[in-house]
Amino acid sequence: MKSLKVGIIGLGTVGSGVYKVLKNFKNIEIKKIAVKNINKKREIEDFNYDLLTDNPYEITQDNEIDVVIEVSGGINPTFDILKSAIENKKHIVTANKELLAKKGSELFNLAKEKNVVILYEAAVAGGIPIIMPIKTILCANKITKIAAILNGTTNYILTKMAEQDLSYETALKQAQELGYAETDPTGDVEGFDAAYKIAILSTISFNKKVNINKIYREGITKITAHDINSAKELGYRIKLIAMGQVLSDGKIDVRVHPMLVAKKHLLAKIDNATNSILLRGNPVGDLVFTGAGAGAEPTSSSVAGDLLVLASELEATDSPLPQSVCHHDEIADQINIGDTYNEYYISITASNHPGAIGFIGSVCGKNNINISTIMQKGINDDNTAEIVVITETSKEADVQNALADMLKSDSIKNINNLLRVMN
Amino acid sequence: MKSLKVGIIGLGTVGSGVYKVLKNFKNIEIKKIAVKNINKKREIEDFNYDLLTDNPYEITQDNEIDVVIEVSGGINPTFDILKSAIENKKHIVTANKELLAKKGSELFNLAKEKNVVILYEAAVAGGIPIIMPIKTILCANKITKIAAILNGTTNYILTKMAEQDLSYETALKQAQELGYAETDPTGDVEGFDAAYKIAILSTISFNKKVNINKIYREGITKITAHDINSAKELGYRIKLIAMGQVLSDGKIDVRVHPMLVAKKHLLAKIDNATNSILLRGNPVGDLVFTGAGAGAEPTSSSVAGDLLVLASELEATDSPLPQSVCHHDEIADQINIGDTYNEYYISITASNHPGAIGFIGSVCGKNNINISTIMQKGINDDNTAEIVVITETSKEADVQNALADMLKSDSIKNINNLLRVMN
Repeated sequence: MKSLKVGIIGLGTVGSGVYKVLKNFKNIEIKKIAVKNINKKREIEDFNYDLLTDNPYEITQDNEIDVVIEVSGGINPTFDILKSAIENKKHIVTANKELLAKKGSELFNLAKEKNVVILYEAAVAGGIPIIMPIKTILCANKITKIAAILNGTTNYILTKMAEQDLSYETALKQAQELGYAETDPTGDVEGFDAAYKIAILSTISFNKKVNINKIYREGITKITAHDINSAKELGYRIKLIAMGQVLSDGKIDVRVHPMLVAKKHLLAKIDNATNSILLRGNPVGDLVFTGAGAGAEPTSSSVAGDLLVLASELEATDSPLPQSVCHHDEIADQINIGDTYNEYYISITASNHPGAIGFIGSVCGKNNINISTIMQKGINDDNTAEIVVITETSKEADVQNALADMLKSDSIKNINNLLRVMN
Repeated sequence: MKSLKVGIIGLGTVGSGVYKVLKNFKNIEIKKIAVKNINKKREIEDFNYDLLTDNPYEITQDNEIDVVIEVSGGINPTFDILKSAIENKKHIVTANKELLAKKGSELFNLAKEKNVVILYEAAVAGGIPIIMPIKTILCANKITKIAAILNGTTNYILTKMAEQDLSYETALKQAQELGYAETDPTGDVEGFDAAYKIAILSTISFNKKVNINKIYREGITKITAHDINSAKELGYRIKLIAMGQVLSDGKIDVRVHPMLVAKKHLLAKIDNATNSILLRGNPVGDLVFTGAGAGAEPTSSSVAGDLLVLASELEATDSPLPQSVCHHDEIADQINIGDTYNEYYISITASNHPGAIGFIGSVCGKNNINISTIMQKGINDDNTAEIVVITETSKEADVQNALADMLKSDSIKNINNLLRVMN
């Protein structure tokens, strides 16, 4: 394999992991590492502090450096740093999902112009090989669907809620204490992180540029212990699912939201911080890829893998291989959530009188919604009852209308939750 | 991508699937297809019968053909045909696990000499991307363990036995009627097919040539409904597991046999004809790849994927990339089954007297075996009792000695089964 000189932007948890792995490869020379604080003590054996610089442009403008590895995250100043690196004809290996989801097109176009590649296996699902398989061995397939657990933090919280009968708040607190969730958990629990990842995955799977701003996104903060238990009773687990699909008219449906997943489905069996990606392709059928979606070690496997494959390719040819080049000239025509079709779980608090269930049924009927299961769950002290409805496949806009209609009636006290269902 | 002219050896179920997929790619021209009977009617729309030849050497010696796709199976005459193709500097894409497991070294060495590649994603686990990920994006990892369900037929039979409480014979018969098992099921049910696949996977994962003849192999024909039920009661499912691992002394342990797999383990959740591969690597941790392990469509995804990636590489360079070349100069030092360490499930028929369990315990103790669970399951009409033992991790040779010791006693009527356990 070709010898490569690399510069690394960032030496946090992931950066340190990458450094430790790359040190083992004789053909990789780490020439410089850009950090915020060059005086900070690093927990790395025999670390050579002379590698450090606090000026990332020393790396991007170094004529000897072939590849810039970016593991610092965020948009500012990372976007400008990578732009400078590409302009100086460095190949890029990055784990930065937010940057790729928000500003990927600009970077990919510039890279194409400068004849360098941007590799990003580590940006989606940590150590799970998914980007390279889609771009290489699966390339004969027309991929029509992705359904995935792409955020370890939320899957950990939902697992603990289900296993230990905890409220969302308690499970979040435990996840924070154990380091699975950050002090400000917004990026994870509100689905932003999963949205960045599904934007990237959908773009390469469907070969159309997905706009992150048009992805419907709903987090897990409104999931209650009551929802988890009702789901269990009905044969489901609740998971935060990132999905993308190509509809029969060619339009693209990409979204992130919690779903009731049937217990027999492989994604229902993915517990704790594990990630898992179901990919439906023609001719391959359904594939499921499962593994650690975050952490220094799994992420460094993907970063080092991208780098070593690039070294192998550059040994044979100076130009990047066609399969490694990303350019999505076609824009995905993304539909709105109102136009999607789903099965639904609706949790309702109603007055405890005999007409309540009939009323719910008739409102659903008027809005073209067929009910497949309806379950009343005991009576509350205030003489209200919890009613759970599972619908057949219905249009989201119709369901929203039905919920609005229900709330007009005095007998419906509250719509506690509306979740989509995957069988 | 580079335009490639290809010849196909074999036009059975898989060959027809490959033909249909490749027709969609403008840069792939199928120039000739070698079959046994050129007059047979083919179930392919708009099929051009002029492509057919009954002389495969017309393909291997055709100067215009760049790549030979082999989907005919078996060793004779396939080995000679592929040798001729390689000698004539054709790249090879093959789905032939038996040929690679038995004669791979010879073909890989010849290919290296002739500067061509042999690609074989389709030979292991059908449509699941596993060979290329190991050779590319996972290449920074030291892979230490593989545990896999690699044979769909046996997994289907074991699933039906567990779900419908069937005997092995009845489940096999149903599988044959539904086309999941062949009339002569030996290759599947005795573990030969899984052994070929784990030989290939272990060789590329551990970078040492695994000898197929040194793989311990045990099929599923001795699994009874009683075993399946006892396993269930103890919290396990029975699966035919192909495993390979690198031991701490560098020796290699490769084998195929049924195992009790703990219900919470992802492999226990793989039902019907689905395949699944657990790969343990450092730094990536545990990855699980799941999908269809056989069938025309999944297999053609892998064949076409190999071919299209090769076309992409040959667009950039005339030489195969280093990562695509297989040569395993080092021979794996494979241990015997007697030297392996496992937890065990032992099913025993003993006389129904109070000393039986004590006797079993003392024989185990004398042979360095700690028992973790012992369960007596009712009393038979002939005043014998079924006893099931689960051991802690023990050496296989010790367990075999213990079983021999038990059978010397009149109170032990039979050792019904000995199975290994995966938690």
